[in-house]
Amino acid sequence: MTVLLDSVESGRMVADRGRALGIDFPALIEIDSDGHRSGVRPGDPALMAIGRALGEGRGASLRGVMTHAGDSYNCTSVDAIRAMAERERAAVVGCAEALRGAGLPCPIVSAGSTPTATFATGFNGVTEVRAGVYMFFDLVMAGLGVCLIDDIAVSVLATVIGHQPDKGWIITDAGWMALSRDRGTAKQKVDQGYGLVCNVGGVPIDDLVVVDTNQEHGIIADRRGAAIDTARYPVGTQMRILPNHACATSAQHAAYHVVNGGTELDAVWPRFSGW
Amino acid sequence: MTVLLDSVESGRMVADRGRALGIDFPALIEIDSDGHRSGVRPGDPALMAIGRALGEGRGASLRGVMTHAGDSYNCTSVDAIRAMAERERAAVVGCAEALRGAGLPCPIVSAGSTPTATFATGFNGVTEVRAGVYMFFDLVMAGLGVCLIDDIAVSVLATVIGHQPDKGWIITDAGWMALSRDRGTAKQKVDQGYGLVCNVGGVPIDDLVVVDTNQEHGIIADRRGAAIDTARYPVGTQMRILPNHACATSAQHAAYHVVNGGTELDAVWPRFSGW
Repeated sequence: MTVLLDSVESGRMVADRGRALGIDFPALIEIDSDGHRSGVRPGDPALMAIGRALGEGRGASLRGVMTHAGDSYNCTSVDAIRAMAERERAAVVGCAEALRGAGLPCPIVSAGSTPTATFATGFNGVTEVRAGVYMFFDLVMAGLGVCLIDDIAVSVLATVIGHQPDKGWIITDAGWMALSRDRGTAKQKVDQGYGLVCNVGGVPIDDLVVVDTNQEHGIIADRRGAAIDTARYPVGTQMRILPNHACATSAQHAAYHVVNGGTELDAVWPRFSGW
Repeated sequence: MTVLLDSVESGRMVADRGRALGIDFPALIEIDSDGHRSGVRPGDPALMAIGRALGEGRGASLRGVMTHAGDSYNCTSVDAIRAMAERERAAVVGCAEALRGAGLPCPIVSAGSTPTATFATGFNGVTEVRAGVYMFFDLVMAGLGVCLIDDIAVSVLATVIGHQPDKGWIITDAGWMALSRDRGTAKQKVDQGYGLVCNVGGVPIDDLVVVDTNQEHGIIADRRGAAIDTARYPVGTQMRILPNHACATSAQHAAYHVVNGGTELDAVWPRFSGW
């Protein structure tokens, strides 16, 4: 376990707890490279104060610095992601150098978001790249140009349970409890609703998306509201829904059902729960 | 187990499966009382056809009708909810009477959404009211006037892990993985962000809401962007976040930790998973 922190206050609390337990918690200092969430900004004197607080005694030991350029998800071009990647790298490497310059240890220099990990022009000085959604990809990543739709390796298997033909709706058993409430593509160039609809082989079907969800029901329709022949998708038809955000959708399920195309099961992988 | 269906096609499939298994599936016909999701509209001849398909042979047996006025969540006044409740009741009772008039059995007449269950002026002809979120209530229900903030009986216990004082942000360990992505109050008169912030005793703190979330981080700030003294909420401070939607938030957790005020544990109730 490595503890991530961004204040002297937290550093002292972790060290106190470590001493009480008779152990040293390995600790990373979070660097705020993009104003997106927590972390110490590059140049903030707090960085040195935290480093020294962790270095002062037993209970915690400084292992390095870490950042996550989560704002890369909001970029609208590959050039913007590339610039964000360099900003992320420069922030975390600069902080590592500042700590080392003050005689403090900084073996780990950790960066990464899937977009910046994909488009970075270099990782000079970085020792670790964390890119979680890289494993599956999703519609948000496809919308950012990070992957193709065909690269998305996780989906929700849904079954048609009814129709509302006058509305052009196909009703499935996969509502937001199965898909998550994540609408990460809502502000992208292509809004994929609650997910893109594919056949069981993973090939997108016409221009169908999950246009709305109830708790247990998915509502599939043409993305532009065009009429569709709902009878082409009889009750019992299985479909794959590609998710906006692989993390949010996977978190709604206890396990992954692993297939090699189709629906024949190769394995069941229990999901790590909690965060 | 009772099967809910809304087409002759589904009725026949269920009956076929029941016969193959040598059992009779009890079945309810879903009635669409508000155009919100699936179901047969009152007056649609499909109702009788489904009733007869279920009555024809073994494998499935008609037990009644069911509806859910989910569109009541979008009402903007108590009068509108009251009108929706009567529409819901009239739809499902009317369908039950039509089935009985054709000599078909209809012992169960099931209605209910928490708003309509709360404000209905009568339940004449209804045999069952389902009102799930009634158990806990939540901010969406408070926004609808269905309950008071003080009635909300479920919350997420969050801990302050940092600050961004120049932005007026308090950072917690409860991001959307803990709170869900549900933004059900976004279109209500009072937008509660990702949740209303209370002290450990459940009393709202000033005008703090969870203004944004990352996967594992909650960002708490004044709802109108006013400056706050973040030092009043030091690292380690525990807070309760009242959820927009009790169902969505509870679904993010494996169990309920039951307390009688404060944080001392009375019981742990495992959560029913799946849907």
